[in-house]
Amino acid sequence: MNDDKNNDHSDDKEENLFPDLKIVLIETSHPGNIGAAARAMKNMGATNLTLVNPHEYPSDKAIYRAVSAQDVVANAIVVDTVDAAIADCELVIGTSARDRRIPWPLIDPKACGDKVIAEHRAGRKVAILFGRESRGLKNEELQKCHFHVNIPTGKAYSSLNLAMAVQVICYEILQSSLKESSPAADEDWDVAFASGADMEHFFKHLEETLIEVKFHDPQNPRQLMTRLRRLFNRIRPDQMEMNILRGFLTAINDLKK
Amino acid sequence: MNDDKNNDHSDDKEENLFPDLKIVLIETSHPGNIGAAARAMKNMGATNLTLVNPHEYPSDKAIYRAVSAQDVVANAIVVDTVDAAIADCELVIGTSARDRRIPWPLIDPKACGDKVIAEHRAGRKVAILFGRESRGLKNEELQKCHFHVNIPTGKAYSSLNLAMAVQVICYEILQSSLKESSPAADEDWDVAFASGADMEHFFKHLEETLIEVKFHDPQNPRQLMTRLRRLFNRIRPDQMEMNILRGFLTAINDLKK
Repeated sequence: MNDDKNNDHSDDKEENLFPDLKIVLIETSHPGNIGAAARAMKNMGATNLTLVNPHEYPSDKAIYRAVSAQDVVANAIVVDTVDAAIADCELVIGTSARDRRIPWPLIDPKACGDKVIAEHRAGRKVAILFGRESRGLKNEELQKCHFHVNIPTGKAYSSLNLAMAVQVICYEILQSSLKESSPAADEDWDVAFASGADMEHFFKHLEETLIEVKFHDPQNPRQLMTRLRRLFNRIRPDQMEMNILRGFLTAINDLKK
Repeated sequence: MNDDKNNDHSDDKEENLFPDLKIVLIETSHPGNIGAAARAMKNMGATNLTLVNPHEYPSDKAIYRAVSAQDVVANAIVVDTVDAAIADCELVIGTSARDRRIPWPLIDPKACGDKVIAEHRAGRKVAILFGRESRGLKNEELQKCHFHVNIPTGKAYSSLNLAMAVQVICYEILQSSLKESSPAADEDWDVAFASGADMEHFFKHLEETLIEVKFHDPQNPRQLMTRLRRLFNRIRPDQMEMNILRGFLTAINDLKK
């Protein structure tokens, strides 16, 4: 880790309260927001920052706005795709400002904090996705998520600054961690859950199989894959269940041979 | 109200969910923080911004960072003293990062939200004070408060950006307003509470009287007035009780005539 050059506000201690949590910023336009988000994260004890295709990075503005969280910026992992960011994560939550055409399981920031802490206590990796300043997450990115989290706002102005959204979400995660026991479920599951990479492989296999059996026409997809993504993300299959599902698809594929 | 020039993110509606709430920023150094705080407020339905001696204001940076909350910046009230900002407020809450020498009633942001909403439902004016970027509120400012609110942080980096603190506090106020009933007390009090101005007049009268009766030596004040401020702010006298207290002090003054 880099030394923190500007640590007058800092207690001068390394601390990552949530080693299994990644904050993922996707195609951030303004590097100042990366720095401000890093500061918001470190203020709340979270330090794993992943950047997907940032527009202007590395950047002095990011460093400047991070103040005493320059280590979070310096240690940020930069990747090309959302899939790469979430590949090892068993729970993926996407921030969403708007109602989408197909409703997805939607939670508020407090419930998000509780879910993240339940995963944290079970030692499972979590990614929280934050979209572009201008238009948030794309539908295809939202469809990779188990849950969408929405920050309630007044009606007159509903668009939070990106780093402010990171602040609220990380605040609720720290708040939840300060409570004795976590109310969220799934904590005592006996098998690891399918990771982001497992899920993407499964959806690819599922779509190929649906095409093969002529149930799905990629030229006229309608909402089929969206609905199936929502269904299987809601189920949150564990790795054993995933093996069963993949085995079933392979058995279908073998029929044609 | 000024028109909102940059309303692409806005639902283009005036809205002040909390007309009796003032957000008070004291001696803000960076005008960008004023704009970012205005945006954070409006996102959460709060629009009354009071600035005490801002260092650089009016400012294009404040306007730029406000994005669609330029109306909040344009309508901000600028005053010279904290006393002027809180004169008409029946509840004053100060944000505080550190433990102070003399502990004050301390609440977390959620309890702060609940208290503000209880006052809001009772139609009473509330001020929330945010201090300087560099060193927060001075002790004399903190001693004007009924409560201090502290935003919990990780240990490694406990200093939130000013606008981020406004975001968290306003978020909890909106959250509390979304709940059916408010858990806070004092809602059904039959007489209005003493205002910030009433309290300052009382403390001035009290101190003069303490000097007059030779109980208090302003050359060697120790913590006497601090402790009395804490005591009477904790009691939160209503206007009738305040009249009694002032009458008692006047009776003491009359003894010397």
